[in-house]
Amino acid sequence: MSRQMVRPGGRSARVQAAVHAAVRDLSAEVGRDALTVPLVAQRAGVTPSTIYRRWGDLRELLSDVAVERLRPEGTPEDHGSLRRDLTAWAEQFLDEMGSPTGRSYIRDALLGDPDGGNAGRCSAYAADQIRVIVTRAADRGEEAPDVETVMDAVVAPLMYRILFRPDGLDSAFARRLVARLLGTDEV
Amino acid sequence: MSRQMVRPGGRSARVQAAVHAAVRDLSAEVGRDALTVPLVAQRAGVTPSTIYRRWGDLRELLSDVAVERLRPEGTPEDHGSLRRDLTAWAEQFLDEMGSPTGRSYIRDALLGDPDGGNAGRCSAYAADQIRVIVTRAADRGEEAPDVETVMDAVVAPLMYRILFRPDGLDSAFARRLVARLLGTDEV
Repeated sequence: MSRQMVRPGGRSARVQAAVHAAVRDLSAEVGRDALTVPLVAQRAGVTPSTIYRRWGDLRELLSDVAVERLRPEGTPEDHGSLRRDLTAWAEQFLDEMGSPTGRSYIRDALLGDPDGGNAGRCSAYAADQIRVIVTRAADRGEEAPDVETVMDAVVAPLMYRILFRPDGLDSAFARRLVARLLGTDEV
Repeated sequence: MSRQMVRPGGRSARVQAAVHAAVRDLSAEVGRDALTVPLVAQRAGVTPSTIYRRWGDLRELLSDVAVERLRPEGTPEDHGSLRRDLTAWAEQFLDEMGSPTGRSYIRDALLGDPDGGNAGRCSAYAADQIRVIVTRAADRGEEAPDVETVMDAVVAPLMYRILFRPDGLDSAFARRLVARLLGTDEV
């Protein structure tokens, strides 16, 4: 987690954007294993000490960049029912997090994270999306499980298998988890 | 994962035991962050190149040691019923994996693991234990869920929350997961 609050538009936000962009660009150009703080600093146009002061070390910086990349880009789509919304969301979550890129971001997020704040942010992103879906369902008059129940029944098995048990993991599995939770047939 | 097969009692097994013991002892003495391959090699009485050849680098070695430490020590206790066996197992799993030491082993296991083999071994340990419990239940004539269902409903939420969402994680939560899966009251 970055060590200071970031005010949008301020110098601090500009530094963060430049450093994050440098990490992304250099990862693509020279590969993750060749990254160093001086290299990132040079590309971002800041001093290495700016990076050390703000992020601690390279691993924490990579963790911070990874969490930013794992932030969802919009609210979950409305497909007209809880069952369809949750199924579509679970399929997309698996698609993104289970990709080689997704996996490497999750590992980075977990690794450079001494206080657990970045892992917590990843989990909060998922919980926020689930909250939108179940709230919308309740607004439609549908009966809906609470957010933590969905986290346990859908998000946790997907993430657990992505990290520990990826064999045979596919979108049919994501659909089954939702069907099992809602007690309905698969979409 | 170690790069060669280990024959029990052979030189390879002795090297592995010595290197693992050196990592454990030095971690306690000088702390994890001060470990280096030459330091571990010196303590274990092997050359650094033996370690590089067999484990690749320090991170992979730490991952290998972590997985060994996460190996369960015996078969799950028999408490007379599926519900009681699974509840006791889930409480103990959370206790061990959710401790600061457990968490740091899980992180090590995940991080120095380019091919995913070590994470898979951790998951296989849990699955093996669950298999003992549900097989025993079936032998008693109890109706029992299959292993993968228990992995999704009990193991995954515990591990997900340990890594990503530890707030409020306690043994009551472990008991609730089992009760939810089996559709019975908590023990």
